Amino acid sequence: MQILTTPRAMQDAALTLRAAGRRIGVVPTMGFLHEGHASLIRLARARADVVIVTLFVNPAQFGPNEDLSRYPRDFERDRALCEAEGADILFAPGADSVYAADASVWIDEDRLSRGLCGASRPGHFRGVCTVVAKLFNLTQPHVAVFGEKDAQQLRILRRMVRDLDIPVEVVAGPTVRETDGLAMSSRNAYLSPEERLQATCLRRALDAAASRLAAGERSAAALRAAMAEVIAGAPLARADYIEIVDDETLEPVTLIGRPALAAMAVFVGRTRLIDNAVLRP
Amino acid sequence: MQILTTPRAMQDAALTLRAAGRRIGVVPTMGFLHEGHASLIRLARARADVVIVTLFVNPAQFGPNEDLSRYPRDFERDRALCEAEGADILFAPGADSVYAADASVWIDEDRLSRGLCGASRPGHFRGVCTVVAKLFNLTQPHVAVFGEKDAQQLRILRRMVRDLDIPVEVVAGPTVRETDGLAMSSRNAYLSPEERLQATCLRRALDAAASRLAAGERSAAALRAAMAEVIAGAPLARADYIEIVDDETLEPVTLIGRPALAAMAVFVGRTRLIDNAVLRP
Repeated sequence: MQILTTPRAMQDAALTLRAAGRRIGVVPTMGFLHEGHASLIRLARARADVVIVTLFVNPAQFGPNEDLSRYPRDFERDRALCEAEGADILFAPGADSVYAADASVWIDEDRLSRGLCGASRPGHFRGVCTVVAKLFNLTQPHVAVFGEKDAQQLRILRRMVRDLDIPVEVVAGPTVRETDGLAMSSRNAYLSPEERLQATCLRRALDAAASRLAAGERSAAALRAAMAEVIAGAPLARADYIEIVDDETLEPVTLIGRPALAAMAVFVGRTRLIDNAVLRP
Repeated sequence: MQILTTPRAMQDAALTLRAAGRRIGVVPTMGFLHEGHASLIRLARARADVVIVTLFVNPAQFGPNEDLSRYPRDFERDRALCEAEGADILFAPGADSVYAADASVWIDEDRLSRGLCGASRPGHFRGVCTVVAKLFNLTQPHVAVFGEKDAQQLRILRRMVRDLDIPVEVVAGPTVRETDGLAMSSRNAYLSPEERLQATCLRRALDAAASRLAAGERSAAALRAAMAEVIAGAPLARADYIEIVDDETLEPVTLIGRPALAAMAVFVGRTRLIDNAVLRP
């Protein structure tokens, strides 16, 4: 596995691979990789000749009071995981090589990013769209793999690919969970043992909504109340948002008449976790 | 020469050309082509195996009170000019095929676009950046040619290419002028005979600034005053802006100590014309 650390080296390599007719798959990550990332690398592996994993903790998608400086990092472990999963190139650029000091061009999505995490984290999806467009230009992928856990991000990136005519196929990988249901996340490393136990409330809340739906409940307010009740039962948890939105437009819905997305962000202690599930009537 | 009218057909053709190792040059235009455009096509012709001219009057770069609906069009003449200049593909998409009805992803440049035309035409450069990024993704160019007449646009697009890591070489073509000095523009077609005569005031104003500079004047205010005096001498002309800015940052300057850009937008009758010149101390 090749390790590249500058945008220039990455782009030169990618253009050479493209010119040679190789099919490129990319898995953009912020590192501190877990089984969720590994599953995405395997999806890329099955769809491309050359698999590139990018590892970049993107400052542009963190707010001023967020966890950029303490975001967990372990390059050696990440390197080993990428190699074990059969990645061909690990692109791990230095923090200062990705954005020029006077960078002034940004990509905004202005509909799907209004609510949910976009409302809680102003500028977050601008940072995500911009860095992903840059990574696409640097890695020249035919296919790009993202996790369904970041449901809003996935929908926004699909929209970006459509609206900017980027010739890349976006593939989504299902959320990978711990045995007790907690969605895998690099941020789970922040949790104390007691917080870790209570963090299952996110998945249990989604299960509660799914059960009520299966029992015939169609009111989004009732489903949200069921979710909120589960979160309230975990003393270390505090909801940032609990929403049920249309799966396509991400606009709030009142009745579940077509596929909806139950999405939530919950602080467990100081750690903000997200999870989601598609609800099908 | 091939004529393509859908984004899908254009992108398929471009990806096929790329895969075959052909070097692609693109000249984005809004049509109603003149000798200025022809010179850009020739620059592309000299630098690429395959020359694509795009013809699209981009609604996203027009303000609500601007001239989108009356922008001059003559497809047959444009087609003949492209063919005569040796273009290989003319990409002329229909108005509705370029933007989805629910398009929500936009590219913003937030420094270089603050002043000059960006101040007079809010949203203009967002529309320009977005459509050019789309056209790049649809035509997959190695080299793209733009005119120096649109000086601010050129600098903003170079910045976009840098900040989004787009692997395209931007080449600038010098402004082409009528024999009396008027910069060629599709919008010159709007001018009445009397307006056409007075429209030379833009170039004469730039010449006045250049003469004062050559005579030792370094004060931007004095140079602007010289330009304004020439414009004031044309009764049908009214300045939208007359500015002298740093050639790189586009920030206003007070003394010409390094290359500066003298840039102006002037209404001649109802027609808004722009022109510019680089002032070198």
